[in-house]
Amino acid sequence: MPIDRPTDAQLALFLEFLRFPSVSTQPAHAGDVRACAEWVRARFQAAGLEAAVHETPGHPAVVARSRMAPGRKTVLIYGHYDVQPVDPLDLWRKPPFEPWIEDGIVTARGSSDNKGQILSHIFGVEEELREAGALPVNVVFLVEGEEEIGSPSLPGFLKARAAELRCDVAVVSDMEMAGRGVPTLTYGLRGLGGLEIAMTGPSRDLHSGLFGGAVVNPLAAMARLLASLHGPDGRVAVEGFYDGARPLAGWEREAWARAGATDAGLLEHSGAPELGGEAGYSGVERIWGRPTVEINGLWGGYQGAGSKTVLPSEAHAKITFRLVPDMNPEVTLERVAAHLKKHAPRGVRLEITPRDSGKPFLTDPNSGYGAAAQRALRGAFGGREVALIRNGGTVPVVADFRDILGVDTLLLGLQLPGCGAHSPNETFPLENMAAGIRLNRAALQQIAAMG
Amino acid sequence: MPIDRPTDAQLALFLEFLRFPSVSTQPAHAGDVRACAEWVRARFQAAGLEAAVHETPGHPAVVARSRMAPGRKTVLIYGHYDVQPVDPLDLWRKPPFEPWIEDGIVTARGSSDNKGQILSHIFGVEEELREAGALPVNVVFLVEGEEEIGSPSLPGFLKARAAELRCDVAVVSDMEMAGRGVPTLTYGLRGLGGLEIAMTGPSRDLHSGLFGGAVVNPLAAMARLLASLHGPDGRVAVEGFYDGARPLAGWEREAWARAGATDAGLLEHSGAPELGGEAGYSGVERIWGRPTVEINGLWGGYQGAGSKTVLPSEAHAKITFRLVPDMNPEVTLERVAAHLKKHAPRGVRLEITPRDSGKPFLTDPNSGYGAAAQRALRGAFGGREVALIRNGGTVPVVADFRDILGVDTLLLGLQLPGCGAHSPNETFPLENMAAGIRLNRAALQQIAAMG
Repeated sequence: MPIDRPTDAQLALFLEFLRFPSVSTQPAHAGDVRACAEWVRARFQAAGLEAAVHETPGHPAVVARSRMAPGRKTVLIYGHYDVQPVDPLDLWRKPPFEPWIEDGIVTARGSSDNKGQILSHIFGVEEELREAGALPVNVVFLVEGEEEIGSPSLPGFLKARAAELRCDVAVVSDMEMAGRGVPTLTYGLRGLGGLEIAMTGPSRDLHSGLFGGAVVNPLAAMARLLASLHGPDGRVAVEGFYDGARPLAGWEREAWARAGATDAGLLEHSGAPELGGEAGYSGVERIWGRPTVEINGLWGGYQGAGSKTVLPSEAHAKITFRLVPDMNPEVTLERVAAHLKKHAPRGVRLEITPRDSGKPFLTDPNSGYGAAAQRALRGAFGGREVALIRNGGTVPVVADFRDILGVDTLLLGLQLPGCGAHSPNETFPLENMAAGIRLNRAALQQIAAMG
Repeated sequence: MPIDRPTDAQLALFLEFLRFPSVSTQPAHAGDVRACAEWVRARFQAAGLEAAVHETPGHPAVVARSRMAPGRKTVLIYGHYDVQPVDPLDLWRKPPFEPWIEDGIVTARGSSDNKGQILSHIFGVEEELREAGALPVNVVFLVEGEEEIGSPSLPGFLKARAAELRCDVAVVSDMEMAGRGVPTLTYGLRGLGGLEIAMTGPSRDLHSGLFGGAVVNPLAAMARLLASLHGPDGRVAVEGFYDGARPLAGWEREAWARAGATDAGLLEHSGAPELGGEAGYSGVERIWGRPTVEINGLWGGYQGAGSKTVLPSEAHAKITFRLVPDMNPEVTLERVAAHLKKHAPRGVRLEITPRDSGKPFLTDPNSGYGAAAQRALRGAFGGREVALIRNGGTVPVVADFRDILGVDTLLLGLQLPGCGAHSPNETFPLENMAAGIRLNRAALQQIAAMG
């Protein structure tokens, strides 16, 4: 493949998009999120589409559409303009919302996840409209502002606007490629559930000399409780946790190994001293095909300089679990909560708050739309074999498209492994923006050609 | 006992003393610590003693002395002017360095620990000098600024100034009374050791969907490691941890029960839902007579509002252990560190940093000085029976007095159980300041009368 780039005008627009600190989880950024939505609307209008910003109970969503031609298929292209928080800020080489370019790579929060990818699709439609005068299919864009907090408003939005969003298939570009230049079709995603634990022991922080030994330490109790979530074999020790988890098929394990996503690559991209996890699976299989329980945050007591001999009053933890087909987030949440209540040490009070959830997703990569997507991928990436993989992340909207709009989703990802989505110094290569523009145009052509 | 109070002039000086935010562990307060030392020096001079501020490698120490009369016993009175940090600040009812008085009780950081207590002794000497014209013994005061960080500079200071600090016995007032109005002689203290654990997994924070399951989560590894420190019976599970811990004598368990320090009281003062700890001991016995491992701080990952699906790079914990006679802090530190290294989960790097340490202390409450102290206590508290107790806290200087100056220490505490030393809303009753002034004068008289 030639190394190619978007035009200077496209690049300038990309950098503009990245400068919005559209962090959806932090209330202080609500104004930035809204300003970013308005920018997206204006961008759609400049590209030649009808567009509007729509209110939701949370952050607004942007909907844009081409002129609807009867008798043509309608493709819904989904993305999100919100981004993850940036902390730990001190690990960023430069400020995360002042994008910089080195060797054809753009670094900024949201560059891969998801601004670079959704913008490629907008550019693809814009180029096709400009060069061909019309699109081969009808296109509806839906760009939301709550993906990074689990898309809480989206199911209601889809239900309320089902007629307006009616389509034949959805396209989502929020995924990893199997490697640089490797056309990739992702046919499965993990689901998500989560909860927050607050543990309270004494009514206030105590002197660890004057009370330590007789008053249960909430930090020790929390450590004991969290340690009970996994067995020594790396398996989740919650009763019934794996019930319903579909075993991996032989062809999948072969396809994944062939896609070149190796444990050595995982080790390199993570920077961890060695890999771990559930016995009996490769690292890639653990991420793409097996459920997990992860601790995302843990805190309590004194975190400052020096020492403080305190027996703290409180301990806190944030936990998420990733689910595979055919597990159910609500059932899993109940099982994990029951485990926590059962194993909570005496001498502390436990409070559990449920968080976001999203269903896992699995589709057939060789269905009619899957085959069209594979043809488009081969075309956009110089005829290379298409990698058929799953992804360990969660895009809750994919299950919502199936359940509410009744359509399947094609996951056409453009971000590279190790791009740092959700990490400091997140990157997106400009060649992937150019490839994404080609892919959008090819995918719309291939879907139109399905007849 | 009548309820009595210090004079208005004494109270005004106490409030002045409390307004210094002399937090020794926080570098930002170094200037406040020094200003407080200067205030203490000036106070000694106003009381009629020679006094000077002495530099140390850390915060300064104040030494004051009465005119030395040959042939008289010399008593070293020790205290500290530094205080604990104030966080969590939001649990204070008013600002911690703006003392307030309600129902004869002063609330402020450092009111009990140790400003109210050491100031009572200064007032006692001042009154005796003013009323009798001279003291019955020679007195040397040593008031340091690093007690709350483990007195790191004090051993060197004692060694360098051993001649100047030569004495027959030391008096320390940094202890709890067995109850309101109960004269109390503390004959044992726990020792202290500590370490900080830094655990690193991936080289940066990762997306928990894209890596979770194959990359070891440092928070889960930390929870597992910390959970390994205790067994299900509440005992510390570190190999050899209890070696050298002296069993409790029958008379001690009886004296402690008689002193009225009950588990019900502990429960009330702590506000915990129930007590816990090592099987086979009462709560009071666990605190006064048994060693512990406590987690003082624990943190890693996302602590902000909402959720962040991060697999964090780092986890941190601050740990201290309390030791009883005849355990050794260095040996215990080695054993705990060896346990941590042995039990550290694979897939993370472990870094252990040792912290403060101090030896445990035990003396005979019926020695010559002990008996004199008991007589003084009875005299100052209206003839009530003296409670003979130990204390779960650590005053490292007591072991240093024994090892470096070669003298025993009388622990004459004035703070009440539940006073909130090291907690928000720390209190000191004004009646205890008045009792402390009487106790100082009686103790000096009784020591002089030993012949």
